[in-house]
Amino acid sequence: MTEMRGAPVATAITDVCKEKIAKLKEKGIVPTLAIVRVGNKGADEAYEKGAEKRFFSAGADVKKYILPEDASQEDLEKTIKSINDDNGIHGILLFRPLPKHMDEDRIKQLISMKKDIDGMSYAGLGSLIASKGGKNQSYAPCTPTAVIEMLDYYGIDVTGKKIAVVGRSSVVGLPLAVMLINKNATVTVCHTKTKNMQEECRNADIIIAAAGKANVVGEEHFSEGQVLIDVGINFVDGKMCGDMDYQAAIKYASAVTPVPGGVGAVTTSVLLKHTVNSAENI
Amino acid sequence: MTEMRGAPVATAITDVCKEKIAKLKEKGIVPTLAIVRVGNKGADEAYEKGAEKRFFSAGADVKKYILPEDASQEDLEKTIKSINDDNGIHGILLFRPLPKHMDEDRIKQLISMKKDIDGMSYAGLGSLIASKGGKNQSYAPCTPTAVIEMLDYYGIDVTGKKIAVVGRSSVVGLPLAVMLINKNATVTVCHTKTKNMQEECRNADIIIAAAGKANVVGEEHFSEGQVLIDVGINFVDGKMCGDMDYQAAIKYASAVTPVPGGVGAVTTSVLLKHTVNSAENI
Repeated sequence: MTEMRGAPVATAITDVCKEKIAKLKEKGIVPTLAIVRVGNKGADEAYEKGAEKRFFSAGADVKKYILPEDASQEDLEKTIKSINDDNGIHGILLFRPLPKHMDEDRIKQLISMKKDIDGMSYAGLGSLIASKGGKNQSYAPCTPTAVIEMLDYYGIDVTGKKIAVVGRSSVVGLPLAVMLINKNATVTVCHTKTKNMQEECRNADIIIAAAGKANVVGEEHFSEGQVLIDVGINFVDGKMCGDMDYQAAIKYASAVTPVPGGVGAVTTSVLLKHTVNSAENI
Repeated sequence: MTEMRGAPVATAITDVCKEKIAKLKEKGIVPTLAIVRVGNKGADEAYEKGAEKRFFSAGADVKKYILPEDASQEDLEKTIKSINDDNGIHGILLFRPLPKHMDEDRIKQLISMKKDIDGMSYAGLGSLIASKGGKNQSYAPCTPTAVIEMLDYYGIDVTGKKIAVVGRSSVVGLPLAVMLINKNATVTVCHTKTKNMQEECRNADIIIAAAGKANVVGEEHFSEGQVLIDVGINFVDGKMCGDMDYQAAIKYASAVTPVPGGVGAVTTSVLLKHTVNSAENI
């Protein structure tokens, strides 16, 4: 059984980025990410630190725009617009969800498509549907992209494979399903209203859990030799875990991602990759 | 067995629109569709006539923008921009594919999201992914919407149903899959790289054929009591047919759409509905 750890995937992506960044710097361009955070949520701050470390170690830069929890919609819109107009910034990471008094949907649509390196806008998401055979001018959200990077790194060709995606969120499940279909997989999206989720999962070659809830996928969903990918990040009794029962998963899987240390470890390198690509395309 | 004809569905949609149009006219607003056509393809002209008939009979209006086959990209872009800026126009129908010398992708992104009543732009498609529980500010493409209208009219609740969508185009298969997932169906998208398409289809409660090729779905894909929906419009020996073997379909189906006279008969009424909604939202 292969344990698909995220760290070597992230390192491989970062190494490619380092070379590109060196070349961009010769032209006077430093790939730069704007991190926009409203308030001081602990999980956001932790992710922010990870992203900064990743960017700095690769020679890229990060500019932070921290607004107070009670900032107005207008304040945030001004911030986004100034970042859109700043030629020294190539990508925007906006922590979500935004505080309830803000119109998140409106904010996301303001983000310039060229700098939307986390596929937040409608246009970013829509380019996934339109991308087959076309020119994808935009970036997919980082987490589903991290899943694709994992599969590629560990040599798992999804062509013709049956994949059960568990979860239909607009940030992971749905965009990931579309990306996998465009990579020639046969994808079934399962969710809370699915009647035979156990059967759907057992019949799949690959299960990808992105339900956002601990223990949604367990022994009864597995069959021998499956590739099991867990996108979930949950906390149970203060301990981080995914959406799958990992102890059961390792009994069945031909390859499995741990949590922590799996998909989640790849996302900041995808953020870097997209920012570098954006800097190359200005 | 129910033969799901499109005509009564189209009539029901049009009747609702007529009432809304009457109210809009009291405010001096006439819902108006801009039809943009480059060249003189017979199929486009036939569809255009159908759309005009539908709009005029309901009291709505149509303005035509016909460009010669050799019109330049600039000409078409100017046309689209002038339509975007025209407050008297509420929706845009652009015939595609455009001639090869044009950048169709670029044209589609120029269309104002408010007037994109056929979900052509990235933003229009992306709002489908983002729409669950959110505010869908845009319109889904007309053909997949026509399928949803058919299901609703004939009282087929898709919640928890297993649906095989055959075809993954950006105009029908992919957006339809996302729309059905958001309506709580368990959807599997099948395509040319799917290994066991017969089994995937036989195990489904509903098959929706949108492959764009005659006889892609036949007896070997059917099982007793299925709902069979055929989105295909093909011509074999000069005769119009769908993607399914209709003679086989009627032996198995609990409900089936004919071709012609099925889904295709509903699309112009969806075009009208979206144009009226757009006129209401200005």
